Amino acid sequence: MALSENSGQLVIIGGAEQKEGESKVLREFVRRAGGTKARIVVMTAATELPREVGEDYIKVFERLGAEQVRILDTVTREDASSSTALEAINNATGVFFTGGNQARITSIIKDTELDTAIHKRFSEGIVVGGTSAGAAVMPDVMIVEGDSETHPRVDAVEMGPGMGYLPGIVIDQHFSQRGRLGRLLSALAQQPAVLGFGIDEDTAVVVQGNEFQVVGSGAVTVVDVAEIIHINVDELLKDEALAICGAKLHILPDGYRFNLKTRKPVLAKTAQKAA
Amino acid sequence: MALSENSGQLVIIGGAEQKEGESKVLREFVRRAGGTKARIVVMTAATELPREVGEDYIKVFERLGAEQVRILDTVTREDASSSTALEAINNATGVFFTGGNQARITSIIKDTELDTAIHKRFSEGIVVGGTSAGAAVMPDVMIVEGDSETHPRVDAVEMGPGMGYLPGIVIDQHFSQRGRLGRLLSALAQQPAVLGFGIDEDTAVVVQGNEFQVVGSGAVTVVDVAEIIHINVDELLKDEALAICGAKLHILPDGYRFNLKTRKPVLAKTAQKAA
Repeated sequence: MALSENSGQLVIIGGAEQKEGESKVLREFVRRAGGTKARIVVMTAATELPREVGEDYIKVFERLGAEQVRILDTVTREDASSSTALEAINNATGVFFTGGNQARITSIIKDTELDTAIHKRFSEGIVVGGTSAGAAVMPDVMIVEGDSETHPRVDAVEMGPGMGYLPGIVIDQHFSQRGRLGRLLSALAQQPAVLGFGIDEDTAVVVQGNEFQVVGSGAVTVVDVAEIIHINVDELLKDEALAICGAKLHILPDGYRFNLKTRKPVLAKTAQKAA
Repeated sequence: MALSENSGQLVIIGGAEQKEGESKVLREFVRRAGGTKARIVVMTAATELPREVGEDYIKVFERLGAEQVRILDTVTREDASSSTALEAINNATGVFFTGGNQARITSIIKDTELDTAIHKRFSEGIVVGGTSAGAAVMPDVMIVEGDSETHPRVDAVEMGPGMGYLPGIVIDQHFSQRGRLGRLLSALAQQPAVLGFGIDEDTAVVVQGNEFQVVGSGAVTVVDVAEIIHINVDELLKDEALAICGAKLHILPDGYRFNLKTRKPVLAKTAQKAA
């Protein structure tokens, strides 16, 4: 499940991150992408408004001091094999996927030369980030679409392949703001993945090696179903209510760390609750 | 935490229960209150529309075959000591608190003669039920009001005393429908209670002795913070994000049972997941 030690870093944002003022989450992305030496490519494949969305990110990334910010708008799979696109990626220190519709990212980019190039650069150590739809695509499976504010049901979510940067995890975004516990559990119930990350708005999971750290104003809700004592998914018709017993739940705000291998929060000794 | 074996039963509904057709949840209330021999008192203290709300319940309880249904509308604490009110309770086999504003129930009824009378009848074995606001008041502490769709924060909820039928528990209603995981955790973080019940709409927790059973179309989300390994509530200012590590989570749909003493779901042997 964990990334190889040699991979780059992931900055996975739950959507609606602050773009004026402190901009803590995007600041973290720029810092990790090289700070004043950062060369960032903004991937707008997810959105139908690539110009507007792209320009917002140019503005904030330039304000935060990145050396270079380029928009890469791919509308077709041909676009995703163009030499301009590949050259942009090969020169980048950070690649950022915007919000929009996550199925557009996978249908346009997955398994193209561009996809291969980003993965290669990632394995060489660059930072890959994404927000909202751009966060959903990070694992090897993703929630394509689904219902918010529901109890867990098999038919609450439609799953599909993701971009494969964070295997063994399911991610949901806008988590607290849209009431998505049921949706995340519905996804986990149908996947071999045992960890679900519910990422709040203006909040990021920053993954490096076997650990992630939380950055931002909300929290990350980690649901761990590795040791559940009961699940009824095999007995159900698709609109029936799921039962899941014995899941583990961690609420992790800014600064908290989590080990993906041990599936445990990394707590300073003083932070551990006396028995 | 658990009720004495000699107490009556509680039917605690997450709001918006079906009132036409099958009406599974209210049917369960009437059945447990004595079926065709049920004498039900509908307490409308929570609502500012006692006539409309009361008449809806008369209609459905009569349709489901209750022998007698009476409305008891208390607007002042004097109303809650009237001989008519006390006589109605002393004759009832089931008392049902409607939705509305939970603070109205406690401010009008708590510690009145009426309150004492209902508790006495409950200890003699009658059924006490409530929906929405009428569910929130059941424990000894309740969420008076709070924010939905937020990550856990100390100031996300205002707590107050409840009616004391289910000690050691915090209840939240409209749970999945209003995205209230953060709200329930915010409440649990500030209370000695270690179990939180997030009850969905059209869904009930039916408590008898040390167990409850789930009835209805949604699910009950049980959050158990008895064995958490870390919480940061003592270090925070009130608008800062809570950290809670190692909580346990059970999603229990219709028919599932839970033991309040062991804090574990009661699973049939065949339902337990092979290791």
